[in-house]
Amino acid sequence: MSNDFQEGYPEENLAILILSGGMDSTTLLYKIIDEGKKVRAISIDYGQKHSKELKMAAKTCEMLRVPHKVVDLSVLKDAGFFAKSSLTSEIEVPEGHYEEESMKSTVVPNRNMIMLSLAIGYAITHNAKSVYYGAHSGDHAIYPDCRPEFVQKMRDAAAVCHYYPVDIRAPFENYTKGDIVKEGIELGVNYSLTWTCYKGQDKACGKCGSCSERIEAFTENGVNDPIDYASNE
Amino acid sequence: MSNDFQEGYPEENLAILILSGGMDSTTLLYKIIDEGKKVRAISIDYGQKHSKELKMAAKTCEMLRVPHKVVDLSVLKDAGFFAKSSLTSEIEVPEGHYEEESMKSTVVPNRNMIMLSLAIGYAITHNAKSVYYGAHSGDHAIYPDCRPEFVQKMRDAAAVCHYYPVDIRAPFENYTKGDIVKEGIELGVNYSLTWTCYKGQDKACGKCGSCSERIEAFTENGVNDPIDYASNE
Repeated sequence: MSNDFQEGYPEENLAILILSGGMDSTTLLYKIIDEGKKVRAISIDYGQKHSKELKMAAKTCEMLRVPHKVVDLSVLKDAGFFAKSSLTSEIEVPEGHYEEESMKSTVVPNRNMIMLSLAIGYAITHNAKSVYYGAHSGDHAIYPDCRPEFVQKMRDAAAVCHYYPVDIRAPFENYTKGDIVKEGIELGVNYSLTWTCYKGQDKACGKCGSCSERIEAFTENGVNDPIDYASNE
Repeated sequence: MSNDFQEGYPEENLAILILSGGMDSTTLLYKIIDEGKKVRAISIDYGQKHSKELKMAAKTCEMLRVPHKVVDLSVLKDAGFFAKSSLTSEIEVPEGHYEEESMKSTVVPNRNMIMLSLAIGYAITHNAKSVYYGAHSGDHAIYPDCRPEFVQKMRDAAAVCHYYPVDIRAPFENYTKGDIVKEGIELGVNYSLTWTCYKGQDKACGKCGSCSERIEAFTENGVNDPIDYASNE
């Protein structure tokens, strides 16, 4: 076992995917499988109200026969790490569009760096060459840790964090949500097994920033969103 | 509450310290208190055999009246994240010096990036400007995530991960272990409340790489190490 961390050759074709259970990372899962990657998925429970997304992630992985690990980090929420975010606290999730100032309450401090660092650790343990995540251009305005410059800096760090460089890949970096749905439809993504709404209710609210963006992405592509919305009742 | 994440002014003098309970980060705690920083410390339980270090961290913080949070991430070990590391698994901790090939088994994959990303998230939640950690030059040869180039890449990422740049500071980056002890003695560090040994035994073994380096650092400074070693019995 002492040789396991020696400078060596990672498995080039093995990828770790950060799978939230939302549309972006689920589409990315289909995409990299289609490209011939061998995939292991990890999902992080950070105490999000919309933990339903984690169940969707599990269902998709079961269907596609992808090894999947849900890591329970809800202890972070209990330790007060995300006390100011409406996604994890008593603060109400705002309605409206991402562009609005109120949406800043949905920021979970440094969430993507935390997830990436864990996924990189997991990649090293499994001797995987790459980590994929679903950052896309629609997120930039509101979330600092979805911007291409952030992704690039994390890429640079991942290149020197171990004996071999770990590659961070965000193929949707310059995609809009509509572009993702377009590609997802071509790939045959089962969007009924994805969860987007930020509110922790039985049905998607149809009114939060996350729902609004999803609805627009489907409308833009002229296809039906297969999930039910509470706002349509 | 919606204003909490707006672009704004962090508390310049407030620092988050990653405190392992070892000599380096404990000395760093004394140093930044001496420099007038207001400090909050966090310690991470990642399933290390030498969890005694966490108790030492708690004792030091209690003595110095520093707010301290131990975050239990031992779930990562259970999820197989660190399965190949002798610090967290059944694999035996090697004896000898850090230069030896066998010491690579003590690498915990991407540990420092994981700790830094958590500390940055904690800093943002507390509106702190900086994150301190105790990386030092003695670690470079064996641990990729202690090298100055890694620290620099993480610094670059932390500068763009939020609405305000978070500063990563590693003042011991170019110190040897001996330099740290020298400064610690001047600062009056209580080294009896630090834990260095990698083995999870009642007394420090005196033979693992970590103990060897500690013993040499005290010898180099001509002072007594206040802790007991099993190897002296």
